[in-house]
Amino acid sequence: MTHTHQTLTVDLGDRSYPIYIGSGLLRQPQLLAPHIAGKQILVVTNTTVAALYLDTLIAGLESLQIEGLQLDRLVLEDGEQHKHLDTVSLVFDHLLQQRHNRTTTLIALGGGVIGDMTGFAAAAYQRGVNFIQVPTTLLSQVDSSVGGKTGVNHPLGKNMIGAFHQPQCVLIDTQSLATLPARELSAGLAEVIKYGLIADASFFEWLSLNIEQLKQLEPALISQAIYRSCACKAEIVADDEREQGRRALLNFGHTFGHAVETQMGYGQWLHGEAVGAGMAMAADLSHRLGWIDWPTVERISRLLEASGLPLWGPDQMAANDYLQHMQVDKKVTDGTIRLILLEQLGAAVVTSEFSSELLHQTLSHQSVC
Amino acid sequence: MTHTHQTLTVDLGDRSYPIYIGSGLLRQPQLLAPHIAGKQILVVTNTTVAALYLDTLIAGLESLQIEGLQLDRLVLEDGEQHKHLDTVSLVFDHLLQQRHNRTTTLIALGGGVIGDMTGFAAAAYQRGVNFIQVPTTLLSQVDSSVGGKTGVNHPLGKNMIGAFHQPQCVLIDTQSLATLPARELSAGLAEVIKYGLIADASFFEWLSLNIEQLKQLEPALISQAIYRSCACKAEIVADDEREQGRRALLNFGHTFGHAVETQMGYGQWLHGEAVGAGMAMAADLSHRLGWIDWPTVERISRLLEASGLPLWGPDQMAANDYLQHMQVDKKVTDGTIRLILLEQLGAAVVTSEFSSELLHQTLSHQSVC
Repeated sequence: MTHTHQTLTVDLGDRSYPIYIGSGLLRQPQLLAPHIAGKQILVVTNTTVAALYLDTLIAGLESLQIEGLQLDRLVLEDGEQHKHLDTVSLVFDHLLQQRHNRTTTLIALGGGVIGDMTGFAAAAYQRGVNFIQVPTTLLSQVDSSVGGKTGVNHPLGKNMIGAFHQPQCVLIDTQSLATLPARELSAGLAEVIKYGLIADASFFEWLSLNIEQLKQLEPALISQAIYRSCACKAEIVADDEREQGRRALLNFGHTFGHAVETQMGYGQWLHGEAVGAGMAMAADLSHRLGWIDWPTVERISRLLEASGLPLWGPDQMAANDYLQHMQVDKKVTDGTIRLILLEQLGAAVVTSEFSSELLHQTLSHQSVC
Repeated sequence: MTHTHQTLTVDLGDRSYPIYIGSGLLRQPQLLAPHIAGKQILVVTNTTVAALYLDTLIAGLESLQIEGLQLDRLVLEDGEQHKHLDTVSLVFDHLLQQRHNRTTTLIALGGGVIGDMTGFAAAAYQRGVNFIQVPTTLLSQVDSSVGGKTGVNHPLGKNMIGAFHQPQCVLIDTQSLATLPARELSAGLAEVIKYGLIADASFFEWLSLNIEQLKQLEPALISQAIYRSCACKAEIVADDEREQGRRALLNFGHTFGHAVETQMGYGQWLHGEAVGAGMAMAADLSHRLGWIDWPTVERISRLLEASGLPLWGPDQMAANDYLQHMQVDKKVTDGTIRLILLEQLGAAVVTSEFSSELLHQTLSHQSVC
């Protein structure tokens, strides 16, 4: 059986790294070999993913026959509710107990939670060690594995503690999506759709045409969707690594979505579900501002719905619930809420130029006349 | 009353920052003004330092009359035994409870423990916010306030969790040394002496001549000692910010010293005391290798002794105790212990070129024939 793959380079000067995308890449460990510098590896994963893919990855790493390799593994609990500093502490404990030195390589095998926590552990362990991402969910493949954002949640806010830390490489095996629950596949599609909305109207059209086959994981199409998503994000990140400007656009739908996640408690709504609802709300507010027309809002809603995503936050959340959480959003400076809104399909801006009245109408889900 | 000060610039490109050194600078808050970008400040200090200097700093910051300033303070427990992740968590809790955004500035008022923890909190809060150091101990003034190393300890190793994060500026008020216990002054002198040993033999001579007045805190002399120490460290850090090479020389005495600290439990030996003993041990091994002569070892010992520093680790520590801790030192790669040793007075190297037999002789404190 032969495997083909595409390689995308994230261009960040001396921190540039490749993303390998293809079907069956977990059985191509030689792709990882040039990115392992020392003689120590710690694979970090969770209980769910360990049962499915850990043995394959470990066998692959062993097959590389790196002389004197110390190959350790750490299996964490599964779920966003475990994405906090205490869990990262378990990674530090393991690294120190097993005497990993500063040439060690951490490999994150799993979704965004595993990637974010392992990446932050790699950023902070001995003030920074090497790190490889093997994302197994659609969401982590198209979002959190690109761009170097790592971190954990705090009871008072998502991703409030973290670091920018770029991986040595990212290995995306699209076959790992076969075991992904439908709900998580939908959540991942939310981020895919996001790239179309903020930066690429033709990609949005392509997604609208192909959404049913994408949900069926048609191999060539899903690879293409991942490649275009990663390329879009990589281009934006290369332009603005530290989120001084344009990178903020990647948070489209996220300010609303984070409010939902915080209100409901982490893990109740999937991140992608909350972002899906948040994008619908951002589109709604963009329309109320007269920036996009109602048919465009409806096209967005149709694609989100076809992807299996919610079109609104939880019924019990009132406007004030949203506002309370939005005040601690990282984009808030000096008390002003900033949102990413659509000037048109495929073109987003960061803005605080909306009246609190229109925002309130959106948050309280008032019908648009 | 007029205050004069010296300004030293740490040259790190777009992360360059000034160090202000002088007597009474805590009463010159206008030095800090250009380094406060937003409208929020959190001063982090400990119970001991708060009682002495917090009101002065707060009054100074208030006198700047920054419009709409939110000025918060957090007083932590005093001592190295609190330098762990849970204490940094308290800083995150406070920042989120008080809704600090990513334009906030953290000010560390205290010694190295406060500086390292506050700096790490600033590095990780929202993936990095601004940070100012106001070091109040000699050790933190000449060492931890220069170079951007931040972090916390782990039960299995010192400073094993952290980040590189440069401050906006450092404000050193030499008057704050007046309240420093003699033991801590000696601990700070250990790092001052280190700069002479590794990089500047004439500074070592100057210290040997002036050690008694320095211990009396003669203002002009203590300022000069701090300036020369910071300049030495700044020059090395500018050359090698990420410790790929030469910066490792700053760890002279530290591998031995960390072993003492870890063995005894944090807070039993002061860091500077452990480093003082570690430097004597490194000098001893350098002599056993035939690199420096015995009179030089004796000159080093005399200055350490005159500074009130121990010349050896705790009596109960055996060679194997040292070796066990030295195996997890950050300079260990692929199982090889690396040490900083003296080729001559004023010239240190990183090396693994010593026999385990000679190292064992040093660690077991065998007399030199």
